[in-house]
Amino acid sequence: MIELNPIGTIHTPFTEPAGMPIQPTGGAGVQGTVEIFEEYQAGLKDLDGFSHIILLYYFHRSQGFKLHVVPFMDTQERGLFATRAPMRPNPIGLSIVQLDRIESGILHIQNVDIVDGTPLLDIKPYVPDFDNYGEVRTGWLDETRNSVRIRRSDERFS
Amino acid sequence: MIELNPIGTIHTPFTEPAGMPIQPTGGAGVQGTVEIFEEYQAGLKDLDGFSHIILLYYFHRSQGFKLHVVPFMDTQERGLFATRAPMRPNPIGLSIVQLDRIESGILHIQNVDIVDGTPLLDIKPYVPDFDNYGEVRTGWLDETRNSVRIRRSDERFS
Repeated sequence: MIELNPIGTIHTPFTEPAGMPIQPTGGAGVQGTVEIFEEYQAGLKDLDGFSHIILLYYFHRSQGFKLHVVPFMDTQERGLFATRAPMRPNPIGLSIVQLDRIESGILHIQNVDIVDGTPLLDIKPYVPDFDNYGEVRTGWLDETRNSVRIRRSDERFS
Repeated sequence: MIELNPIGTIHTPFTEPAGMPIQPTGGAGVQGTVEIFEEYQAGLKDLDGFSHIILLYYFHRSQGFKLHVVPFMDTQERGLFATRAPMRPNPIGLSIVQLDRIESGILHIQNVDIVDGTPLLDIKPYVPDFDNYGEVRTGWLDETRNSVRIRRSDERFS
């Protein structure tokens, strides 16, 4: 058993999981803030040099999980680990967002696909040389992944 | 307080944290396996269509954290959240690895920068349209990030 404690709270315009962008690329232009709890703010030094950051957070609105799900991007059941569905054995979410500025322990971010009030677990700098692969196969998403910018969530994982 | 339970174990050639590649791009060609516990194996359906996957795991060899660290890639102290150092308030690691095949609940992976025996928390498909940004700034890493392929860890975070 592993125990985690949030280091902050993510604030966004999305008060309910339904109707949200599905991925950060679908949340283009949507602004939000990340409030970092005071005892962790010293760790933000140098972060403002990065234009994009990786947020790891707790899917606090998800309860339980199924190993087969019909994802927002598809009409067929897929294996849970081949999807980004929020109901997972360990409900950790991952979003890469644009970092506009940091003021008084508040991160101002863009391209947000996260529900308001989400507990933040970690921040990592986004570095293309670590995280970016050119030629990839994306299985069941090969045909539909370009549509992520226009798709929205519904209530299936609420 | 959030409680997590591992869904599997990552096996790699790296029995000690020192001397390891620093990021997956530094572990090019290094092979490993991920053993998924039987009760979660049904969730692996469709994952074999993806050439790259995101592993989230628990830095089980890390204890405690400091908010300022001297990263492997630098000689100066940086804010913890502007680094990938393993000693973090919530010690969750993230690696994007190549998935070669899945057999009997075992994932065969390449480009591994993870220590042997690491508890796996989650698997997500790597999808460039979700996770890949073109023009980015990478702060203190701008000058050194290309060297990540040849750098190796030492004992500073062991």
